[in-house]
Amino acid sequence: MSKHSRNGASHSSALESDELRLVDAWWRACNYLAAGMIFLADNPLLREPLKADHVKQRLLGHWGASPALSFVWAHLNRVIRREDIDVIFMAGPGHGAPGVLGPAYLEGTYSEVYPDKSEDAEGMQKFFKQFSFPGHIGSHVTPETPGSIHEGGELGYSLSHAYGAALDNPDLIVACVVGDGEAETGPLATAWHSNKFINPARDGAVLPILNLNGYKIANPTILARISHEELEALFVGYGYRPYFVEGSDHAQMHGKMAETLDAAIADIHAIWKKARNGRDTERPRWPMIVLRTPKGWTGPKEINGHKVEGSWRAHQVPFSDVHNNPANLAVLERWMQSYKPEELFDESGRLRAEIRATAPSGARRMSANPHANGGMLRKELKMPDFRAYAVDVSQAGKILHENTRPLGAFLRDIMRCNMETFRVFGPDETASNRLQAIYEVSKKVWMADFLPEDEDGGELSRDGRVMEMLSEHTLLGWLEGYLLTGRHGFFHTYEAFAHVIDSMFNQHAKWLDICKNHVPWRASVSSETILLSSTVWRQDHNGFSHQDPGFIDLVTNKSPSVTRVYLPPDANTLLVVADQCMRSTDCINIIVADKQKHLQFATIDEAIVHCAKGIGVWRRASTDEGEEPDVVLASCGDVATQEALAAAAILRERLPELKLRFVNVVDLFRMQPDSEHPHGSSAREFDSLFTLDKPVIFNFHGYPWLIHKLAYRFHNHENLHVRGYKEKGNINTPLELAILNQADRFNLVIDVLDRVPRLQSRATHLREDMRNAIIRHLDYAHTHGTDKPEIAEWVWPF
Amino acid sequence: MSKHSRNGASHSSALESDELRLVDAWWRACNYLAAGMIFLADNPLLREPLKADHVKQRLLGHWGASPALSFVWAHLNRVIRREDIDVIFMAGPGHGAPGVLGPAYLEGTYSEVYPDKSEDAEGMQKFFKQFSFPGHIGSHVTPETPGSIHEGGELGYSLSHAYGAALDNPDLIVACVVGDGEAETGPLATAWHSNKFINPARDGAVLPILNLNGYKIANPTILARISHEELEALFVGYGYRPYFVEGSDHAQMHGKMAETLDAAIADIHAIWKKARNGRDTERPRWPMIVLRTPKGWTGPKEINGHKVEGSWRAHQVPFSDVHNNPANLAVLERWMQSYKPEELFDESGRLRAEIRATAPSGARRMSANPHANGGMLRKELKMPDFRAYAVDVSQAGKILHENTRPLGAFLRDIMRCNMETFRVFGPDETASNRLQAIYEVSKKVWMADFLPEDEDGGELSRDGRVMEMLSEHTLLGWLEGYLLTGRHGFFHTYEAFAHVIDSMFNQHAKWLDICKNHVPWRASVSSETILLSSTVWRQDHNGFSHQDPGFIDLVTNKSPSVTRVYLPPDANTLLVVADQCMRSTDCINIIVADKQKHLQFATIDEAIVHCAKGIGVWRRASTDEGEEPDVVLASCGDVATQEALAAAAILRERLPELKLRFVNVVDLFRMQPDSEHPHGSSAREFDSLFTLDKPVIFNFHGYPWLIHKLAYRFHNHENLHVRGYKEKGNINTPLELAILNQADRFNLVIDVLDRVPRLQSRATHLREDMRNAIIRHLDYAHTHGTDKPEIAEWVWPF
Repeated sequence: MSKHSRNGASHSSALESDELRLVDAWWRACNYLAAGMIFLADNPLLREPLKADHVKQRLLGHWGASPALSFVWAHLNRVIRREDIDVIFMAGPGHGAPGVLGPAYLEGTYSEVYPDKSEDAEGMQKFFKQFSFPGHIGSHVTPETPGSIHEGGELGYSLSHAYGAALDNPDLIVACVVGDGEAETGPLATAWHSNKFINPARDGAVLPILNLNGYKIANPTILARISHEELEALFVGYGYRPYFVEGSDHAQMHGKMAETLDAAIADIHAIWKKARNGRDTERPRWPMIVLRTPKGWTGPKEINGHKVEGSWRAHQVPFSDVHNNPANLAVLERWMQSYKPEELFDESGRLRAEIRATAPSGARRMSANPHANGGMLRKELKMPDFRAYAVDVSQAGKILHENTRPLGAFLRDIMRCNMETFRVFGPDETASNRLQAIYEVSKKVWMADFLPEDEDGGELSRDGRVMEMLSEHTLLGWLEGYLLTGRHGFFHTYEAFAHVIDSMFNQHAKWLDICKNHVPWRASVSSETILLSSTVWRQDHNGFSHQDPGFIDLVTNKSPSVTRVYLPPDANTLLVVADQCMRSTDCINIIVADKQKHLQFATIDEAIVHCAKGIGVWRRASTDEGEEPDVVLASCGDVATQEALAAAAILRERLPELKLRFVNVVDLFRMQPDSEHPHGSSAREFDSLFTLDKPVIFNFHGYPWLIHKLAYRFHNHENLHVRGYKEKGNINTPLELAILNQADRFNLVIDVLDRVPRLQSRATHLREDMRNAIIRHLDYAHTHGTDKPEIAEWVWPF
Repeated sequence: MSKHSRNGASHSSALESDELRLVDAWWRACNYLAAGMIFLADNPLLREPLKADHVKQRLLGHWGASPALSFVWAHLNRVIRREDIDVIFMAGPGHGAPGVLGPAYLEGTYSEVYPDKSEDAEGMQKFFKQFSFPGHIGSHVTPETPGSIHEGGELGYSLSHAYGAALDNPDLIVACVVGDGEAETGPLATAWHSNKFINPARDGAVLPILNLNGYKIANPTILARISHEELEALFVGYGYRPYFVEGSDHAQMHGKMAETLDAAIADIHAIWKKARNGRDTERPRWPMIVLRTPKGWTGPKEINGHKVEGSWRAHQVPFSDVHNNPANLAVLERWMQSYKPEELFDESGRLRAEIRATAPSGARRMSANPHANGGMLRKELKMPDFRAYAVDVSQAGKILHENTRPLGAFLRDIMRCNMETFRVFGPDETASNRLQAIYEVSKKVWMADFLPEDEDGGELSRDGRVMEMLSEHTLLGWLEGYLLTGRHGFFHTYEAFAHVIDSMFNQHAKWLDICKNHVPWRASVSSETILLSSTVWRQDHNGFSHQDPGFIDLVTNKSPSVTRVYLPPDANTLLVVADQCMRSTDCINIIVADKQKHLQFATIDEAIVHCAKGIGVWRRASTDEGEEPDVVLASCGDVATQEALAAAAILRERLPELKLRFVNVVDLFRMQPDSEHPHGSSAREFDSLFTLDKPVIFNFHGYPWLIHKLAYRFHNHENLHVRGYKEKGNINTPLELAILNQADRFNLVIDVLDRVPRLQSRATHLREDMRNAIIRHLDYAHTHGTDKPEIAEWVWPF
């Protein structure tokens, strides 16, 4: 089932070759630099005897994963040069940054983007010192690292990022080193199945390289401790052709790796060729490599009688106490000298030309490949005019429409105009979310087996560009990989289960924040736009476990410079918001919009004006006629807006003299001061909407306290009374769920009565009518299983 | 490698047997009930011709997964009875609740816990009507379902829950049906590796049954569309012995399933026996079953020319429009009659005795197994006296100690006293989090291969009860399964990466909320206690990606009746809090405590008093001497408290006349009103601490706005000024990171100067000194890579 490279004889002869001797030299230089980064503050080329003073005060960094990373890099370089191929590098064990920074420095890229880290002794000293040093770079492959689109600080996403980068990049190979620690995470364990979504006729290839170095921080890894037979079966089961490169002897390993990499690259080229000749539409068995090497390979074998190389002790700094223990200082010097720096670097401290020549040059360098600074390759989306998809709203509040359906048609045409640079991602719910118009131009990609019945509405195709898999992790990983290599995409998911990818959101937000604000050489990439649908308020049979609007709470914790949250109340505002999101760069846009039928309020022109402001008075629903109102009724979110409008309708009918101002919020961050968020409101803007002292009843889509968290700095905050979801629910009709959380029209009317001073002890009838309406409607729901038609199909009566 | 059951002849003869005929009848009854739940409001036994009026107004529920679930249940019943074994059932596709509710009803358990759903026509009608009906039960296996400890509303956790239930339950078999949709999720994909952590000598067994019904909501599933060879290799690779039961012919499938289940149970017994005779300590190859059945099996084959059985169209309600389309009504009647209800139910509507007898009785019923109502089996933890582990704090603020280390010793002795009912779970960081004392009594369980070097500090053992795997999902799933079956546990993880399990937290909180407040027959289970360590403020080389204190934000969105958050400032308060958490029930306790060295303030007796209040004035750090202060300086969290205390020390020295009150918060929910949370403060309590009108500077561990979100209802909120983490960071020394976020001692002093009216335009020197101190300390950090010793080893000077 797999090819073993176990012919020692041929390998050592292979290593005899000049080529591999130079690869080895290049690798030794990498390892030397990796050790230097962790340990040295000075004397970078060890041209004088090592003294404690030369060693960093505080030793920080991860040695364990580094040598294998640069081993892979060095060997990839050999193939890239020979075959002139386009390859980027993904370091799953990103905490092995020394193993990636070293190559970037040796290829000259590091000095190009950071000229003070020049290719000489002085630059090398700075390069060493900055590593894991306060105010400088981290011990992961952070955005500051040229050639990186994957930090690897949090583990689990390397492989899905790699596959995302390979989509629609027909000549690109993404070499993805997966650590055996990371391989234990759920997201990684399922990402192996991404090979069922890669079409060799038009996508590139991912070459996964599982590095079994055997250990995590303090434990062995599972995959390093199962039998060869199980390991091989696992990857055959995942659909790969596994190659094994196992050992520690440098010479033999160079030979094996070279041979294996040649075979794997040949496999990829054969697969591409076959598919592109139209001869094969079957899912191929892509190659992958199991690289078993000692943890901390080439490092000290033993310290104080404890095994270090090939042990968890090599995970971070392999030994400390260098300042006070001369023995350890000697170990360090001996170790670093074992790489023979004098053979590697010339007088000035620059890598010798002959060794340097083993790496490719220009954009072929993995550290300088433009795919890894995707904004360089990004082309603007060709955008159809969103106005063309507008719902006809000749009378506001009179018709019901599924808010997301026009968006589906809009996405369809974005796809049509950008077939090779745009994809839509969602876990099995594109149709359920009413976005199925997109299938008219592109089906769901499916490289696994087909059955005859797929013809009947299956919407599957090897050529499809809609990505559906029941793994939010994999989907978002693909999208991030796709965006960071300069393309465009749209992700939609179940609101409650967006929490599955909370941590991925956090990491991507941090990545963008650093790129945007601290790494000037990174070009802008398209924003990540996430539609949360199947929202909390419409879980008619899924119930409590599916009710969670808290993802946006998380979003408001991340940097304002990269976070945007929109809650369009109807189909046309959703179109405007989506258009804006798809054009934006370097942000994460969250759109919350339910897929069910909702009242339509804004014509497309009104929607444009309203969304441009992000917050505004809805005159039609207001009775203050521009004067100071008695009360402000505000809403944010589709169902929340419907209920607030229904409350306004009741109040208008029953208390015609009440001066009510109706405010709607589309752009959530308008509720924050402009000192806190670029979309924030000035105090004047906020005061002019919400008054200085009148009661404000705010009906919110999410957890009510989020509004307080955003708005607490504003005047009149003490009169701001927010309703929203309060974790009360089960199997409920929409109105019943709103009632349980006091976010329904009747409770909102009562709120107004309770808070407008002159009504507090009056309007007894109205108050009683509201209480009775609640009882009556709950009775109806519990008898019939639905809301009364007058609720379910409620239209604005004015 | 695996056994195929493909001998059709022997199976049909097997079905000839009375036994399997009765199993089939029992299964037909289940399917009849499942269809009835989805469709019928009345006429439950179809004793009169079906009319549109008998059909529910709104059709909701999932049919697709139901028949296979009850098929497995029926066959398990056969083995349970024959072998008198202890089995619980886990429904991964929990949205196939009809396939689980039916069995629970047929076994009589449902009527025992809900007497109005009696075993007769009237009860059956109520049983049908309540399903997916407003105010009643959901379409997942929710806590209201007897026999369930896994709702399956969110997919991904069935297998880890199953393994958690099997730990330390030597005679228990957990039959876990995994849906092929769920199998695509990351958490599920890695949970298969749980078999490397199950010791057959003292743990029970999990029998995974992968149900390949082929479809998700609208897509085929990956595992159903790969070759048999790949599928088999995958499970061999995961370490199982896969059995295959594939087909749709009822007779043949009964024969195959019976034979296969017999073989699998025999495997389990053989593995147990071998291990318990001490003859084998190797990791066994546990059996698992691949059950390939049509989606919506036994349902309508086709509707309007579209395939339904065996298609994604069977996922939810297989056809609608029953009220207005007589043809569909006839399909429904024909379908339900195909199960021959008159053969199944007697005159009164009760399952006929002969069929009934195929199910076990009493506690052997999977629907009534006490393991699935674990509180029934739960024994109180035997708790050592936490005082014994206290750090000696003879002088407050004078010594540094790792806060989590004494907790490690405490956990060690809890383990010692409760070896069979307590486990500790964490991803590879028990030692890193300074909890390694626990290894003195129990190592890390490891059933994969051993190497000689493991002897040297590997701390691995087949007998261990510390669970470490690099998958937070799997670990938390194990813990939840362990707790819900009546045991006790402790989970610790990296603060930033707690977000990986956000969604699991949400689901468990919802589960507990329902159990505690709405399901009186559920006995209390132990709380889930989660220590967040390696916190935001000490990411000295991991940097920005590892800085995220937002998990507790998420916690504050869930029901106050089940959520608790503690931020003990030192080792002794941590001990008190941990003791309290380990004794508690039905909650999720979050403890945030860093592992690094911190100043120690409270003697154990002081800690007891302080934690009992949860919030209080620290007189030693205050200068208000019980009078109304000029300013309140408050803190919550270890590093936050240290910096606030250092600020207080500076102010005491430089402004001895300033009346400062120092408040520390251990129990975060004390910052909420008592109307909102059971641990909340009354307005009087709050006012007495924070005054009615004095400035309050609050230094918080987490995102500062969380405090506003909690406290906005209190008086004096407008004077509450909170510092905390604001997403500013990189590779920083501790002080540098605090400075970047203005949560350091110097900025806090400036905050006080800015906010105490009489100091605003004075104290110019002090203000300037603070600014200079910031510059000086940053300079030092950037030169030396560490904080000045006077910062790193700062002690309270009074």
